[in-house]
Amino acid sequence: MSEPAKATVKFVDGMQFVGQSGTGHAFVMDAAPGVGGENTGPRPMELLLVGVGGCTAMDVVSILRKKKMDVRGLAVNVKGHWVEGENTYPKYFKDIELEYVVTGKGITEDAVRRAISLSEEKYCSVMANLRGVSKITTSYKIVTE
Amino acid sequence: MSEPAKATVKFVDGMQFVGQSGTGHAFVMDAAPGVGGENTGPRPMELLLVGVGGCTAMDVVSILRKKKMDVRGLAVNVKGHWVEGENTYPKYFKDIELEYVVTGKGITEDAVRRAISLSEEKYCSVMANLRGVSKITTSYKIVTE
Repeated sequence: MSEPAKATVKFVDGMQFVGQSGTGHAFVMDAAPGVGGENTGPRPMELLLVGVGGCTAMDVVSILRKKKMDVRGLAVNVKGHWVEGENTYPKYFKDIELEYVVTGKGITEDAVRRAISLSEEKYCSVMANLRGVSKITTSYKIVTE
Repeated sequence: MSEPAKATVKFVDGMQFVGQSGTGHAFVMDAAPGVGGENTGPRPMELLLVGVGGCTAMDVVSILRKKKMDVRGLAVNVKGHWVEGENTYPKYFKDIELEYVVTGKGITEDAVRRAISLSEEKYCSVMANLRGVSKITTSYKIVTE
């Protein structure tokens, strides 16, 4: 049985909290001004978007490297579309859009498409964890350097 | 229609990425040593655990304050238990355990239980987003100061 992943979140003040991951990395979270926060850190829901972008970005870089592609940059732009309906609570992301912008030399469309599919179907744990509720869609651009 | 939440993730080097939330907060993510990373930041899957802890912690502090409880501290300890099975891919958290440790004066069990239930059922967007895949369980301790 594999060890569970861990995190701890501690109240600081106002709506400011410090989260610390089991691997020892800490950062501030905060709510928006207007709901008692001061925007000193990301919202918890934004962490899902950064997490899904980070997870699939790691996969795509690894896979393209294995394919000997000359990757010089990768950005993943993530949008989380809120469920509609005044009486739907709690709010969640009904749809998550991922746009991959791969920069490099001689990067083929086929390799990028295949890397994204492998991340979606086989490797990306964050996608797997969000997919029960959020529909995830992907698109990509290749920038030749 | 409400504006989507946003994030961008950019490749730095090795398995190091910088994630930036739509509200303007950036931090490093990295993979573990052994899979090409150098552990300079949290794993993407840890962000789900910090996110769910942060989300529900904000709710519980707000609700207990509204109930005029004298809350002096709150820690939420989060464990993410991985799905078992060698051939199950991608891996995800089958179960997420949340332990709330509320510190204060005259905090009642009833108020804590009610605050946690309201977060689960009505307010916590991160729980709502993970619940499709992860079974979430909660427990609490009250520490009198």
